[in-house]
Amino acid sequence: MKKGESTMTEIKFERAAALKAKPQDESKLGFGSIFTDYMFVMEYTEGRGWHDPVIKPYGPLPLDPSAMCLHYGQEVFEGMKAYRAADGRILLFRPEENFKRLNTSCERLCIPKVDEAFCLKALEQLVEIERDWVPHIPDASLYIRPFIIATEGKLGVHASNSYYYVVVLSPSGPYYAAGLDPVKIYVEKSYVRAVRGGMGFAKTGGNYAASLKAQEEASEQKYAQVLWLDGVERRYIEEVGAMNIFFVIGDEVVTPALQGSILPGITRKSALELMASWGLTVSERRLAIDEVAEAYDKGLLKECFGTGTAAVVSPVGELKWGDKVMEIGGGQIGPVSQRLYDTLTGIQWGKVEGPAGWSVEVCK
Amino acid sequence: MKKGESTMTEIKFERAAALKAKPQDESKLGFGSIFTDYMFVMEYTEGRGWHDPVIKPYGPLPLDPSAMCLHYGQEVFEGMKAYRAADGRILLFRPEENFKRLNTSCERLCIPKVDEAFCLKALEQLVEIERDWVPHIPDASLYIRPFIIATEGKLGVHASNSYYYVVVLSPSGPYYAAGLDPVKIYVEKSYVRAVRGGMGFAKTGGNYAASLKAQEEASEQKYAQVLWLDGVERRYIEEVGAMNIFFVIGDEVVTPALQGSILPGITRKSALELMASWGLTVSERRLAIDEVAEAYDKGLLKECFGTGTAAVVSPVGELKWGDKVMEIGGGQIGPVSQRLYDTLTGIQWGKVEGPAGWSVEVCK
Ligand SMILES: Cc1ncc(COP(=O)(O)O)c(C=O)c1O
Ligand SMILES: Cc1ncc(COP(=O)(O)O)c(C=O)c1O
Repeated sequence: MKKGESTMTEIKFERAAALKAKPQDESKLGFGSIFTDYMFVMEYTEGRGWHDPVIKPYGPLPLDPSAMCLHYGQEVFEGMKAYRAADGRILLFRPEENFKRLNTSCERLCIPKVDEAFCLKALEQLVEIERDWVPHIPDASLYIRPFIIATEGKLGVHASNSYYYVVVLSPSGPYYAAGLDPVKIYVEKSYVRAVRGGMGFAKTGGNYAASLKAQEEASEQKYAQVLWLDGVERRYIEEVGAMNIFFVIGDEVVTPALQGSILPGITRKSALELMASWGLTVSERRLAIDEVAEAYDKGLLKECFGTGTAAVVSPVGELKWGDKVMEIGGGQIGPVSQRLYDTLTGIQWGKVEGPAGWSVEVCK
Repeated sequence: MKKGESTMTEIKFERAAALKAKPQDESKLGFGSIFTDYMFVMEYTEGRGWHDPVIKPYGPLPLDPSAMCLHYGQEVFEGMKAYRAADGRILLFRPEENFKRLNTSCERLCIPKVDEAFCLKALEQLVEIERDWVPHIPDASLYIRPFIIATEGKLGVHASNSYYYVVVLSPSGPYYAAGLDPVKIYVEKSYVRAVRGGMGFAKTGGNYAASLKAQEEASEQKYAQVLWLDGVERRYIEEVGAMNIFFVIGDEVVTPALQGSILPGITRKSALELMASWGLTVSERRLAIDEVAEAYDKGLLKECFGTGTAAVVSPVGELKWGDKVMEIGGGQIGPVSQRLYDTLTGIQWGKVEGPAGWSVEVCK
């Protein structure tokens, strides 16, 4: 049997003895801190492939203290959401893209690939069981976290021969408590997130571990996030903590090209496709921070916004680069940001018809 | 109370119901695959600091599926050994250096620091309990793995508010089954391990995760390890998989300077100190791969060797850079490598008196 091939037919279900109380006040959910009753788990064993898929009560994973994920960071994950439409349907947004990216991450981390179609089916089954956990209030959603961790209990540095694939679900509140609100970010000068040749394009623990220190320093200075520059020339724009970044310069919408060091965001991809369909000039290219500053000085920097599953579109109101503080859009949300936000959230919550296949119905 | 401060007085001991059988054939131990009866565990909780230190039976750690170490790689570790001297004493080699480096890693990863003196005391206590597990045959030792993992069960990307510090012990066989044997390594051209501004100087999962793919490709080509180049100019030598690297060029012994992207090895540091005390010319500086190739062409590249806890000193017999294959030392071990190996292992196994404080006796 080929590495990564699955030997599964159906998904076992282990019923919980009792269910948790659902959150009372969905506006206070926050992000990623409470979890639903069930999780999906399957195991990988060398020679057997992925096996024993099961939906079972959310609970601790017993891990050998020498499990490789705890020492060598051999772990990958995904992040997506389930949305409740006004008519009660539960929707996913381009979920195949997440499983495709999961496998790209697996490849970089020497983790056996998963069967994308099976994982989507299993996720749909899990979300259907947990449908009552999908929040009801506007802009709240059920955050979905699939992840794979290396479980072999050995201390030699090599790829593990066993893994867990797990999916947990977390009802999460609206990202913007009081509507779309521009954030302040600064350009990071000391720390580097990832460099070409590294694993920046993969969604794997180490990239986030590397970002904690810069994020902590940004928070102390009351900035929401940092804008990463490339690790080679320390000049080209990469991305923000958990978002890709776009600039509207004159009549061009620019976002850094994918060159191996940034995450290929699914919101980024969708935004590019939407804007092109609207007839906007969109460019994926190298973009130096000094080009942005120059555009700002000339009055050409019209908008700046981040894109990601959590915030969908996040307008940037202030961008600080060393001593230079760039105020963008005068505290207002620009027209491109607003249109993207409305369109993407419209599609996600089933209010707007998107391109074919973007919206996947889990159940009614 | 200050972050990271400890509230501990004494270490609890939970006796195992039964002890495992000790390995029959110590020459077949391999590395890091069997573990002793006990492990050391302590917990960190925000507001309380490190608490509840306990020595208890080796066994699974129950981790929340959302524990941050499983998603964001917030984890650091150390690697050291306990050696059995001919007269029965159990010795550690410069253990304070490991705990100092552990705290350096903690700092980079936003993990609360540990009390170094307490951790050394706890380690000594654990090793003393497990003294019978320290191998008896020459060149075998008890590998010691202290590590810290983030345990908070939340999916927001920020530093965890709770951690485990764990120490596990693994009896390990001689690194060289048939005496010091030169290895083949190649210069990595596609992948990068770490870049300045990143976390290359810390002993943390992500750095090893990033190296798996290159290591896998090297193994397929029958090379033992890869030699990493810097991520910026892709020209300056960094280190090998789990070793620092030295070159003897003419009368100079050169090793890359510590500039944030490589691990500051304790064997490296010890080797530098020993060689300086022998009156050798040692330099920590930038060293380009083309300078090494030029030295080779001129017949000046006399030795190349790696240093690390696992192999102590590992002579490099072949270094491949693109199409250029450099055969070093004609399959023989050079005089500097040999003297370093003999001296370091002599000190480690208590046969040779080293500089004050290098050898720490755990028990007799
Ligand atoms: C580093 C990073 N960049 C960008 C993104 C945006 O990706 P997506 O639009 O797929 O959510 C994320 C995750 O959400 C991220 O973690
Ligand atoms: C990446 C790396 N470099 C170098 C070394 C050598 O360090 P030390 O001599 O402290 O064992 C190690 C670990 O052993 C390592 O993992």
